[in-house]
Amino acid sequence: MFLTNYWYAAGWASEITAAPLARTILDRQIVLFRTESGRLAAFDDCCPHRMAPLSFGSVVGETLQCGYHGLRFDCDGKCVEIPGQASIPPRAKVRAYPTVERWKLAWIWMGESEAADPATIPALTWLDDPEWDFSHGTVIYHCNHVLLCDNLMDLSHTTFTHRRTIGTDDVARTGVTAKATDETVLVERMMRNTEPSPFYKKIGGFAENVDRWQKIEYTPPTNIIIDAGAVPAGTNDRSRGIDTRIISMITPETPTRTFQFWAFARNFRLGDDELTRWIADAIVLTFNEDKAIIDAQQRNVTARPGQRMLDNNADAGVVLMRQAMNRCLTREQAGAGAAE
Amino acid sequence: MFLTNYWYAAGWASEITAAPLARTILDRQIVLFRTESGRLAAFDDCCPHRMAPLSFGSVVGETLQCGYHGLRFDCDGKCVEIPGQASIPPRAKVRAYPTVERWKLAWIWMGESEAADPATIPALTWLDDPEWDFSHGTVIYHCNHVLLCDNLMDLSHTTFTHRRTIGTDDVARTGVTAKATDETVLVERMMRNTEPSPFYKKIGGFAENVDRWQKIEYTPPTNIIIDAGAVPAGTNDRSRGIDTRIISMITPETPTRTFQFWAFARNFRLGDDELTRWIADAIVLTFNEDKAIIDAQQRNVTARPGQRMLDNNADAGVVLMRQAMNRCLTREQAGAGAAE
Amino acid sequence: MFLTNYWYAAGWASEITAAPLARTILDRQIVLFRTESGRLAAFDDCCPHRMAPLSFGSVVGETLQCGYHGLRFDCDGKCVEIPGQASIPPRAKVRAYPTVERWKLAWIWMGESEAADPATIPALTWLDDPEWDFSHGTVIYHCNHVLLCDNLMDLSHTTFTHRRTIGTDDVARTGVTAKATDETVLVERMMRNTEPSPFYKKIGGFAENVDRWQKIEYTPPTNIIIDAGAVPAGTNDRSRGIDTRIISMITPETPTRTFQFWAFARNFRLGDDELTRWIADAIVLTFNEDKAIIDAQQRNVTARPGQRMLDNNADAGVVLMRQAMNRCLTREQAGAGAAE
Repeated sequence: MFLTNYWYAAGWASEITAAPLARTILDRQIVLFRTESGRLAAFDDCCPHRMAPLSFGSVVGETLQCGYHGLRFDCDGKCVEIPGQASIPPRAKVRAYPTVERWKLAWIWMGESEAADPATIPALTWLDDPEWDFSHGTVIYHCNHVLLCDNLMDLSHTTFTHRRTIGTDDVARTGVTAKATDETVLVERMMRNTEPSPFYKKIGGFAENVDRWQKIEYTPPTNIIIDAGAVPAGTNDRSRGIDTRIISMITPETPTRTFQFWAFARNFRLGDDELTRWIADAIVLTFNEDKAIIDAQQRNVTARPGQRMLDNNADAGVVLMRQAMNRCLTREQAGAGAAE
Repeated sequence: MFLTNYWYAAGWASEITAAPLARTILDRQIVLFRTESGRLAAFDDCCPHRMAPLSFGSVVGETLQCGYHGLRFDCDGKCVEIPGQASIPPRAKVRAYPTVERWKLAWIWMGESEAADPATIPALTWLDDPEWDFSHGTVIYHCNHVLLCDNLMDLSHTTFTHRRTIGTDDVARTGVTAKATDETVLVERMMRNTEPSPFYKKIGGFAENVDRWQKIEYTPPTNIIIDAGAVPAGTNDRSRGIDTRIISMITPETPTRTFQFWAFARNFRLGDDELTRWIADAIVLTFNEDKAIIDAQQRNVTARPGQRMLDNNADAGVVLMRQAMNRCLTREQAGAGAAE
Repeated sequence: MFLTNYWYAAGWASEITAAPLARTILDRQIVLFRTESGRLAAFDDCCPHRMAPLSFGSVVGETLQCGYHGLRFDCDGKCVEIPGQASIPPRAKVRAYPTVERWKLAWIWMGESEAADPATIPALTWLDDPEWDFSHGTVIYHCNHVLLCDNLMDLSHTTFTHRRTIGTDDVARTGVTAKATDETVLVERMMRNTEPSPFYKKIGGFAENVDRWQKIEYTPPTNIIIDAGAVPAGTNDRSRGIDTRIISMITPETPTRTFQFWAFARNFRLGDDELTRWIADAIVLTFNEDKAIIDAQQRNVTARPGQRMLDNNADAGVVLMRQAMNRCLTREQAGAGAAE
């Protein structure tokens, strides 16, 4: 079950070129491409003629041409040429999805096209701000998107799963506060006078204990932004601390595969490309540790359809997030029912 | 759904030796072998004793011996030995399929054995004629056989899929005539004063424009022979042109896998083995371009059971071929119904 | 359908260490581990918290700690720590399976725990007896366990499948006697004045014909021990012959995958490690010949659900064994029914 009337990240904008890119999003086969003038477009990846994937085709001017029998479609999905044939029947069209390029990402709207308002694209200002720098990448999990969201909403796992990078004993030990609005969830953890993680020692240069915070914000459909940072313990001195954002734009590929388009933004050591790469490597290592265990968790979930999970205190944010997701889903389905 | 009361190519005759060959044909597991005297035979690939595949066995004289417990079967599938046991129960038999070796191919009859008449094997005379030479090979597609037949009945795709070898702009531009009898279909395209394809330039040595023809003939179950060639434009001079036959004996392996036993016959530069190999390489490259897109087309067809294709003008032959196939299927099923 | 109220070999004892081992047994995901004090334990491989596999965790003292959020479980499966939380709800437990280390193997009880009596573990005395030496190993078949038991109960196949090692013409030629009790089956074959197999020539040093015996004993659930040996023909002189036991402790992994924990014990050339290794190599080669054909047999069995096998004279022991297995299954199901 997916939320559809939302913008999803379909990829990094730089991935979408004149060479059509096949990508499955919300279990639908999509082809993404960029016309000669640079416009982004996304179609159902299936030519209405003989059902060949349009991702085997080529961009010709402002159109995409099927690689099998040469039909051409404009960015609205309308067929504008059938080789060897003068008239074009109205059936010769392919579903086009609204797309927008913003914050270095290519966004796609999977629901009703008329509802697609670019103003509702999440504001990832850190990715387009001279006061911030960022590392970024893509991880593909073999799990349902909810399991990945669970992972990010409960960072107590970092103590056990990420001891080499961001985990310390105090994370799991320290309680959280969690609160929800109708659609959003905020989870906060404050660790005072705590040992910095190996990762924080490296990027923040901390030699002594720190005050460290994690503020995790969920917004639908599957967007999670973590405001995390630390200052020398007891100083409250931001100028000697670090401020970061871990941005996860999560896009379901299928019910058991999920894209995480992630960025790690920082407001210090700007322009230090070596640090940018070092952070990217550490984050990839960390997310691959998550991937190993979440992919395995999904195999258990798939194999045990009747089994329910047990919620602990640390799952406060997880529980609220699942409730918010379900409210959005219920609302979307009710809307779909009313529209019929 | 497969037509069964027809001869299918089971393989090239040279592939069938005393080393049993397991091959799936019309979704049935078959073992093909050649006895010591050189006779071809084909069995259901399952020993009636413990269901081990007979393709793990060995040829002993005029029999095939199971590699598990040693039962031996003659070419009619009758058990002639059970080790350690004097009497042989009538149940100890395996289904044998009629086979014939002709035109360099091994043919198998998958329907009612009593109806198997070798006179109905397609006449592939070019493969056994001193006035012709040929290249040949086998391609396995991951698609239903009908999609491969579609491909060969509508050559307009060569303009878009095979630009490196046989495609030119004029193919898709030029209309076809298509006509059908009850069981066969003939599609013809004549391109006058047209640029020769890269492939024709190489094998025909054409420096100027040509008159080029394509005559595609479908006969059931899945046999497609293309009479293709060219002469210097306006000359009608066969002695300065080329005459070729592209033979596709198509055998369904499963509902989503298909063998194409192909031969490319020519009546010029006979005995030029280097040309024979060059043509084989070009044809393999061309068919692999088809395979890439047809295999992907099949994935769309499988994923979208309700979606119908759109027929264009260029599909005239495709439409007639599908109708002819369906008439044959209906007739075969009616016969099977009447026989019960 | 598996028998559950029996001890199964879960692995060689040496395989179970502080590094948790994931293994599927009777189609259930199990994690096997050894605590710091050396105690064996086995759990359902699924943390009750978020369903992550416990095999991704680590041994901490006498407990296993989940690698995701750090819950710890004692050897009875009781949760003894939830990080960051004082109280532990009763639901926080994982199913623990009785385990015993004996005869170099780790045994697991898959049925009702209260019925687990270590006295019913099969007596594999040869694996812990200074008068015997043994080679051993593990083969994983891609077949149902019954097909592997069939294989071992009818050694006539050795004539055809294992000509390079243990097969001779006389095996398949020589009849067997087979007798059953309610739960066990004994199959005996005596070959007098017979050519020794290549394997017997090597390990027994026989230059002339031998008298050779095979006594195959089945006990439930899936334990097969073969008493096999030979003496110089007509001598009845055990001191110049060889005495061996081929032990197969067979554990279903899934309905179509099966573990064979095998040992080949001998009472001669004790301490000859080169011979021990040579025998292991020959046995692995031999069982891999079995695996090739049984795995293929399973593919036929899977593809042909309606087809029945044909029993020959040589299947006398196979038939009795299947009957005994079915009696045990019926009894176990009746017991389960009565218990409800």
